[in-house]
Amino acid sequence: MTVEIARLPNGVRVVTEHMPGLMSASVGLWIAAGGRHERPEQNGIAHFLEHMAFKGTTRRNALQIAEEIEDVGGYINAYTSREMTAYYARVMSGDVPLALDVVADIVLNPLFEDKEIEVERHVILQEIGQALDTPDDIIFDWLQEAAFPDQAIGRTILGPSALVSGFGRDDLTRFVAERYAPDRMIVSAAGGVDHDAIVAQVTELFGHLEAHGQDTPEPARFAPHERREHKGLEQAHMALGLRSPGYRDPDIYTSQIFATTLGGGMSSRLFQEIREKRGLCYTIFAQAGAYADAGLMTVYAGTGAEELGQLSTLVVDEIKRAAEDMSEAEVQRARAQIKGGILMGLESASSRAERLARMLAIWDRVPPLEETIAAIDAVSVEDVRAMAQGMAGSGELALALYGPLDTAPKERELSERLAA
Amino acid sequence: MTVEIARLPNGVRVVTEHMPGLMSASVGLWIAAGGRHERPEQNGIAHFLEHMAFKGTTRRNALQIAEEIEDVGGYINAYTSREMTAYYARVMSGDVPLALDVVADIVLNPLFEDKEIEVERHVILQEIGQALDTPDDIIFDWLQEAAFPDQAIGRTILGPSALVSGFGRDDLTRFVAERYAPDRMIVSAAGGVDHDAIVAQVTELFGHLEAHGQDTPEPARFAPHERREHKGLEQAHMALGLRSPGYRDPDIYTSQIFATTLGGGMSSRLFQEIREKRGLCYTIFAQAGAYADAGLMTVYAGTGAEELGQLSTLVVDEIKRAAEDMSEAEVQRARAQIKGGILMGLESASSRAERLARMLAIWDRVPPLEETIAAIDAVSVEDVRAMAQGMAGSGELALALYGPLDTAPKERELSERLAA
Repeated sequence: MTVEIARLPNGVRVVTEHMPGLMSASVGLWIAAGGRHERPEQNGIAHFLEHMAFKGTTRRNALQIAEEIEDVGGYINAYTSREMTAYYARVMSGDVPLALDVVADIVLNPLFEDKEIEVERHVILQEIGQALDTPDDIIFDWLQEAAFPDQAIGRTILGPSALVSGFGRDDLTRFVAERYAPDRMIVSAAGGVDHDAIVAQVTELFGHLEAHGQDTPEPARFAPHERREHKGLEQAHMALGLRSPGYRDPDIYTSQIFATTLGGGMSSRLFQEIREKRGLCYTIFAQAGAYADAGLMTVYAGTGAEELGQLSTLVVDEIKRAAEDMSEAEVQRARAQIKGGILMGLESASSRAERLARMLAIWDRVPPLEETIAAIDAVSVEDVRAMAQGMAGSGELALALYGPLDTAPKERELSERLAA
Repeated sequence: MTVEIARLPNGVRVVTEHMPGLMSASVGLWIAAGGRHERPEQNGIAHFLEHMAFKGTTRRNALQIAEEIEDVGGYINAYTSREMTAYYARVMSGDVPLALDVVADIVLNPLFEDKEIEVERHVILQEIGQALDTPDDIIFDWLQEAAFPDQAIGRTILGPSALVSGFGRDDLTRFVAERYAPDRMIVSAAGGVDHDAIVAQVTELFGHLEAHGQDTPEPARFAPHERREHKGLEQAHMALGLRSPGYRDPDIYTSQIFATTLGGGMSSRLFQEIREKRGLCYTIFAQAGAYADAGLMTVYAGTGAEELGQLSTLVVDEIKRAAEDMSEAEVQRARAQIKGGILMGLESASSRAERLARMLAIWDRVPPLEETIAAIDAVSVEDVRAMAQGMAGSGELALALYGPLDTAPKERELSERLAA
């Protein structure tokens, strides 16, 4: 399997990977336009725009967009993250040209009709309601805000209802004009795909756009505090955030290995100590979230009102203990888990296309698999201990809590325990 | 790619499919022991047992079970459904013998230590709490109970806290003795796998078990009523259930096509009429759920307190309208969507192993892909209209509602509107 990359004169990048034997393909457009590219008064516009793309173009109405893809047994979807908006489709190989045509159409030619903006506003307000009704979803928004306060990267993707209620056509066209530039776009495709054909079609569809020049969003600044919301839920939900490397930091693999040893599977320390030995929760995990320039290691657990105090101190103690006695066997297992996850992920066209786009966005290249594996293998147990030591020593942690919080610790208490 | 099937003298069935080019594999054990095989006082025991399998065997403690799989970069998991308990692992191809050994060990040799039962009881009580905190999860349990009242198939998988609080070692061993029989077990594997090697290993691991003889669970009896829970949520969550064919009914494909036209994608009637035109919800879908002998077509939507009344009558009206004016174009699109979903799903080792096991459990054979596609293609627009007409004419519907329910209709009102 071979990765091929092309760059149009206006900056649009194309990355493809042919996967022999696959009858289907995944193709999409990734744009460096996400939550962190919004000014405060724009919060939620990137996501609103993603919704409006499906509401009709100069060439297709909303029903036609859906029908053309579903007529050939495919599906089309989109998401907005803090650094990207992505539009993608899964189709049989022969329908890749159609899928790319539809994706380009909805991104480049949306109508933004006032009537459709009103309808979609209601849909998004319902989406916000749904997120608020899902404690183990909304708590990560709150943790993000507690970790990166008063910054675009700390705000929610959906935006607050008050702003969503006010967005109009001008807000949408302004954000498109500011952000949807060809030199911030990546077309990525994997599966049964033909690189040259895709490059030719991308040239035809996107070649006329004018470059804007690169820009860099405001650097993320970790300034942890806490957010807690008391509510009569069955469980007390806790999310904890620690400073962690970004994707462009060579320590990124150390943080992934540390998060895996801490809470990446059934053999991880948090799972064993908190669930397997003590039965304090059903769900507990740690993961090393990362952006280009910054990261946030998060630990999530849902527990009972009575157990929250004990659980939260156990989590802090496990982070500290990792600095003392992390073993080579655990690091070796984490290496195997991460490599296994990568190799199995490569068998899916969707996750491969996603991965190619993300790597190109971060490094402007696609590191060969051997390079990634060598970097994972190069992480030592000393590296992991040192990272845990740094996190613990700083005493810095962001905290989000939701539910019955009677036994809940203060962020200061946990922070002091971490640094002690 | 070739499906191969074997049957041990004691009834254990083995089904494998080698997928050329895959470096990984999925292997697992599916047992006809789920919620519908529980007596009332046992409700939740199949799921409790699934948890206890991971808590230690005569050969491995809980940590060793996790470590052996994660050491090789794999993962292991399990689930309990109403008809099955499944234990499965995803590993690189060379580790299939290890994965099968671990899966067999946790199913055949669990220790059920009292101390571990107590710990796991707390984990499951937390899991129940988590489900209760997730409205768009718990509402499907309530719909199931409203559709199949006072039957094992209508009860929750997790069981009520009161019963979970009382289960002990004897309850677990009794359920194992009753249900974990070799003639109710299917080993399924897909990806980089070798049929003969797997059959040899299954013979070694499971060959000593004694057959119990087949049995048939109590037939599902659709007796719809309603369940509503008022709560101060952001959204009003609605799930509606209609009588639908089971897997062994030739009409199963008609119901899948009908559900797809109604609410299976962005071009579906519910999505277009309720979300795209009116903005009444973010999530809305229909799906044709099925068991061996019965089915339940479900429609779910999350909406606002003000909009619930309107949304619920629109859903009913769309079911009725489908009986009148379902078009060939929509049926053709649904055929393409279902076939596309099957073909893309076949590219994943996990979903392929799952599919093989399910087909063997339902039909005791694996229909060739061409046969399934022919059956989908054979469904006519008249078949779909007739099914919609039957559902509407009966006026039978089960209803579950959760959240702010001020504008909520009565089940009787919707039922009368459906039949009118």
